[in-house]
Amino acid sequence: MSNLVLHYAPDNASLCIRLALEAASLPFETRLVDRASSAHKSESYRALNPNGLIPVLETPDGTLFETAAILLWLAEQKPYLLPSQSAERAQAVKWLIWMSNTLHPTLRMLFYADQFTTKEGQNALSEHTRTRLCEQLAILDIGLTGADYIGGKTPSILDCYLCPLLRWMQLYPIDAPSRPNLSDYPTLQRVAALNETYASTASAIIAEGLGKTPFTAPNYAQPPEGSAV
Amino acid sequence: MSNLVLHYAPDNASLCIRLALEAASLPFETRLVDRASSAHKSESYRALNPNGLIPVLETPDGTLFETAAILLWLAEQKPYLLPSQSAERAQAVKWLIWMSNTLHPTLRMLFYADQFTTKEGQNALSEHTRTRLCEQLAILDIGLTGADYIGGKTPSILDCYLCPLLRWMQLYPIDAPSRPNLSDYPTLQRVAALNETYASTASAIIAEGLGKTPFTAPNYAQPPEGSAV
Repeated sequence: MSNLVLHYAPDNASLCIRLALEAASLPFETRLVDRASSAHKSESYRALNPNGLIPVLETPDGTLFETAAILLWLAEQKPYLLPSQSAERAQAVKWLIWMSNTLHPTLRMLFYADQFTTKEGQNALSEHTRTRLCEQLAILDIGLTGADYIGGKTPSILDCYLCPLLRWMQLYPIDAPSRPNLSDYPTLQRVAALNETYASTASAIIAEGLGKTPFTAPNYAQPPEGSAV
Repeated sequence: MSNLVLHYAPDNASLCIRLALEAASLPFETRLVDRASSAHKSESYRALNPNGLIPVLETPDGTLFETAAILLWLAEQKPYLLPSQSAERAQAVKWLIWMSNTLHPTLRMLFYADQFTTKEGQNALSEHTRTRLCEQLAILDIGLTGADYIGGKTPSILDCYLCPLLRWMQLYPIDAPSRPNLSDYPTLQRVAALNETYASTASAIIAEGLGKTPFTAPNYAQPPEGSAV
């Protein structure tokens, strides 16, 4: 019996955690959260995460939510998921937090505009959000250039966080009038391509039906169980 | 010559860092960022933080931005800023990340709606955001009830992050039709009141002109130098 339980839906933010668990070679069980029936909004799921968001990781240190918090916890268990040298580590955490409070929320606003404003206001919000997204990608592309805590020989927790975000921005929202081109961001594209070579990614591809090029040229997931949306 | 330099504006997110630096008894220098002339959007400031946001902390581990990342770095320097026991620590980091990617961005959307949508769309966005804010405060109030990593005998980095957020939600935006009442959230109110008793808070009150009850019954800052907005 594993003492780590990942509550997941295919191709949701739980993918970041799955990638890190695989990269850490940590055994874990999974519990499918059935998005098709909005199970993440149920009372029983909210007892695990009152925000009604995926993922949750049950651990010996209690029930954890927030992707970045779980990733930092995993890096405490397996320190090779972050640089050991303090300056590199500080910069890595800086960008991890930025992914968590800037890039990821921007994508959520783009994918779920209805949660943020009225029906009439959604187009204007989405248009602004698309502009902000491209500005943020440009900042990240420059910020990560030359960094050795991402896209290295083995994945860090930054790889595990970033690559699913790059994937989703190329797939969602389904009816978007335009989406960013990964090729406009050469460092991010290099990181995405490297991440497709890791064994941990291969495991996640099978588990969640992500296809052969999940980060550089993604297709919609065809998961063996559950629903991505 | 201190090796820590805080780039700050009074009553901005740099306040969280100042509180933590004071709580850690770490010597630091300050550089005022002149918001009145939008100095945080200047080329020279963007060389420190390409996002054009306050704060930045210059450290021996390089230039850091993102409030939560800086707080986590400070807790690595002074471990008593977080619980030492792993379960408590994991829960503390979970809520710290939540403050960074949920509560803080929600406040930014409320304070700077113009950065997120068109002029016509701002009222609808703000109304939704006010609703989301109260939902989030209710989640946090329950989540922190009984926690001993916040509102303890000495401040943790969670205290330093949360209390300025509670302060600002009672002050901004200046023309808001309504704002949350801290008294609706008894755990948060207790934390805010306790934080007003810390010596580190007294130092910040003087440095940034925050008044006697900066968290439970705040008034607009009257800083000795610089501008809060």
